[in-house]
Amino acid sequence: MNEAAAQSVDLLIEARWVVPVEPHGVVLEHHAVVVRDDVIVALLPIDEARAAYAPKQTVKLPAHALIPGLVNAHTHNPMTLLRGLADDLPLMTWLEEHIWPVEGKVMGPEFIRDGVELAIAEMLRGGTTCANENYFFPDAIAATYKRYGFRAVVGLPVIEFPSPWAKTRDEYFERALTVHDELRGNKLLTSAFVPHAPYTVSDESFERIRVLADQLDIPVHLHLHETQKEVDDAKRESGLRPFQRLQKLGLVNDRLIAVHMTAVTDAEIAACAEAGVSVVHCPESNLKLASGFCPAEKFREAGVNLAIGTDGCASNNDLDMFGEMRVAAQLAKAVAHKADAFDAAFALRAATLHGARAMGLGERIGSIEPGKQADLAAVRLDALESRPLYDVASQLVYATGRHQVSDVWIAGQRKLADRELIGMDVPDLLERVEAWRGRIAAI
Amino acid sequence: MNEAAAQSVDLLIEARWVVPVEPHGVVLEHHAVVVRDDVIVALLPIDEARAAYAPKQTVKLPAHALIPGLVNAHTHNPMTLLRGLADDLPLMTWLEEHIWPVEGKVMGPEFIRDGVELAIAEMLRGGTTCANENYFFPDAIAATYKRYGFRAVVGLPVIEFPSPWAKTRDEYFERALTVHDELRGNKLLTSAFVPHAPYTVSDESFERIRVLADQLDIPVHLHLHETQKEVDDAKRESGLRPFQRLQKLGLVNDRLIAVHMTAVTDAEIAACAEAGVSVVHCPESNLKLASGFCPAEKFREAGVNLAIGTDGCASNNDLDMFGEMRVAAQLAKAVAHKADAFDAAFALRAATLHGARAMGLGERIGSIEPGKQADLAAVRLDALESRPLYDVASQLVYATGRHQVSDVWIAGQRKLADRELIGMDVPDLLERVEAWRGRIAAI
Repeated sequence: MNEAAAQSVDLLIEARWVVPVEPHGVVLEHHAVVVRDDVIVALLPIDEARAAYAPKQTVKLPAHALIPGLVNAHTHNPMTLLRGLADDLPLMTWLEEHIWPVEGKVMGPEFIRDGVELAIAEMLRGGTTCANENYFFPDAIAATYKRYGFRAVVGLPVIEFPSPWAKTRDEYFERALTVHDELRGNKLLTSAFVPHAPYTVSDESFERIRVLADQLDIPVHLHLHETQKEVDDAKRESGLRPFQRLQKLGLVNDRLIAVHMTAVTDAEIAACAEAGVSVVHCPESNLKLASGFCPAEKFREAGVNLAIGTDGCASNNDLDMFGEMRVAAQLAKAVAHKADAFDAAFALRAATLHGARAMGLGERIGSIEPGKQADLAAVRLDALESRPLYDVASQLVYATGRHQVSDVWIAGQRKLADRELIGMDVPDLLERVEAWRGRIAAI
Repeated sequence: MNEAAAQSVDLLIEARWVVPVEPHGVVLEHHAVVVRDDVIVALLPIDEARAAYAPKQTVKLPAHALIPGLVNAHTHNPMTLLRGLADDLPLMTWLEEHIWPVEGKVMGPEFIRDGVELAIAEMLRGGTTCANENYFFPDAIAATYKRYGFRAVVGLPVIEFPSPWAKTRDEYFERALTVHDELRGNKLLTSAFVPHAPYTVSDESFERIRVLADQLDIPVHLHLHETQKEVDDAKRESGLRPFQRLQKLGLVNDRLIAVHMTAVTDAEIAACAEAGVSVVHCPESNLKLASGFCPAEKFREAGVNLAIGTDGCASNNDLDMFGEMRVAAQLAKAVAHKADAFDAAFALRAATLHGARAMGLGERIGSIEPGKQADLAAVRLDALESRPLYDVASQLVYATGRHQVSDVWIAGQRKLADRELIGMDVPDLLERVEAWRGRIAAI
């Protein structure tokens, strides 16, 4: 091809390695990703890319792996302001004496804005480009994501208790529909219903959610079977396991994003696979809260779409998807008694494409393929902690810290350039965070 | 005190926070550590330190926590050159088809030197100042640690198989005694016997080790009850569980460093407590190799001296003690079904003072106390990933990456200054590592 024929594009990213995630298990060497506007238009060897395209900008990543931006499939990002507030406590003491009283006093649009802003900065510096959000005040959440051009599925909360966001069941639904309407046509933000959990949401609300989720064509994102106690309590009170109850209510289908799932039967795993349910594994949260062990390898073997989430910073205490991938891959082996369970390539897939699919974004993000959105993260692999390097996927999952993320793009827009956040005023943000710290510590 | 009375010292380190580890659970604010030669001479408020001492050098750490250097209580550092060589495989495939054949072809003084040198660089950049080493060629291991002034307990291997290090049982013991003698009087290096494991070491060798360890006054560092299979096999073959066999042989005493201990009875835990055995928990290795779950909280509750190790890079795949503390603290809660088990302060203690005690160094290192060696690590806590900060210990264990380590001292000598390794030629090291990578990948 002669130079006259070179196509004009916005961005050429030349990388030592590209891990496209789809096809599965592939690592390409010396390849380039070509981006026009917000879309990946090609993935090909660097030499061919240079000949075929005339980019406005070229970014060279000679010691980096370029991966799809990581997808955090379950988080409560406003709670980033509660990071490490009350650790190492029994679950109910933690909730009833610390988290809920604090939330009751600070929850509102400003708390939400600053918490999400801190989370965005943390996520970008860790290679995460999409969050499945689950908290109150989705309008304030959406406004913050929109301001920074971050991709998210904004949760529309439903719970049978009054909160600063809504007082009655009807108000939760009215507000949910208003936020959903306001997001219509937004390129980066979509919505999902987030009924809190089976033990805090009534059958009537679940039925309304089922009908509305079908009409609006959005997911239902729900904490489910987080602990054995949750299952035992429900069984004792109603005769049904929560999963059975959801089956009766018609919610076990391919819209369902079931988070945690530590206490499950083989039949329930098979039912998830058959119905197309997505499961989100939050291993660090499950360990730290002593919730239990999700049988992640069984879900993988059954062909369930298994994604990975960090959960909120009050229970994790970070939004580090590299750490979460590593623990997921390590823990699954011990739980399955199989050292060859849940391999590194699968961990990368769970943390990208499976998260995207769970959130209804499987056609748009989660892999580096022509036609998909240019959501990308570059990871430096030249420091001594990454050497020697025999296997890129192993290194990324088992021996990489999130600080090795150098550059991030969302929809073709650069958000992190050589570790610098673009378009964020970090000192101003940290001043606000410090003010919240003082206020919250005094409660 | 007037200025004329100020005592001359070598170093004053002024820190925003100091976590001395002893006394337990304490976090001091705006304190200084005073160092003369290799020893901590005082720990006191910064203002008082400035008035009382005339230091040759002052280091200010205004946004940092100063902690005792981390003690990696079980590692095979030459294997750092095998990082991620063969992951996600069944244990025996991994050992028999990958690790052992490679070791057979490369093991020798140069492999040892370069592997340990890479490990030293990685450990220093992660805040680790002392390693409990377990590999062949302890002479080459010791020479490398000595060259860089790194603190270690060098393992003297005993195994009933020939290796490039020794051919016969007698040769293993002869060489062990020679290395032990050569280390006499060394300020940073001591030695321990490292019989490989009960299933690879005979009663006769264990008996010789018991007698010699008493005579030489050194620890016995041993893989023990790593898997249920190890216990079941031994019971079937000999009628005794390995721990019982060691009891019979007189090795269950306060010299014993028992590594892994995933398959243990409550009686064995009590016996460890009573005999003063130290247990080293390697949670990431246990998970990744599907070895099992060490009941770390039970050991803690029983008062056993529980330390933390990374194991080797072939099975972990890093020497990251921050990651290991975090997984240890999270995993212990799930295994114990108690969210308040194994708290952050205990994790820090296990990773410092308990490691030191296990290695017979409890009077010299592992806490920041006057009279102890100045082995120190500074951790930056001002980046947005560490904010807000409510609790220093929680933040260090649950939300800190090892890249936040800024400065490290061993015996008062600065080894890392604002992330730069002092006295190491990293480009030269990485050239050698790259040569090993090429050679090993081609096997």
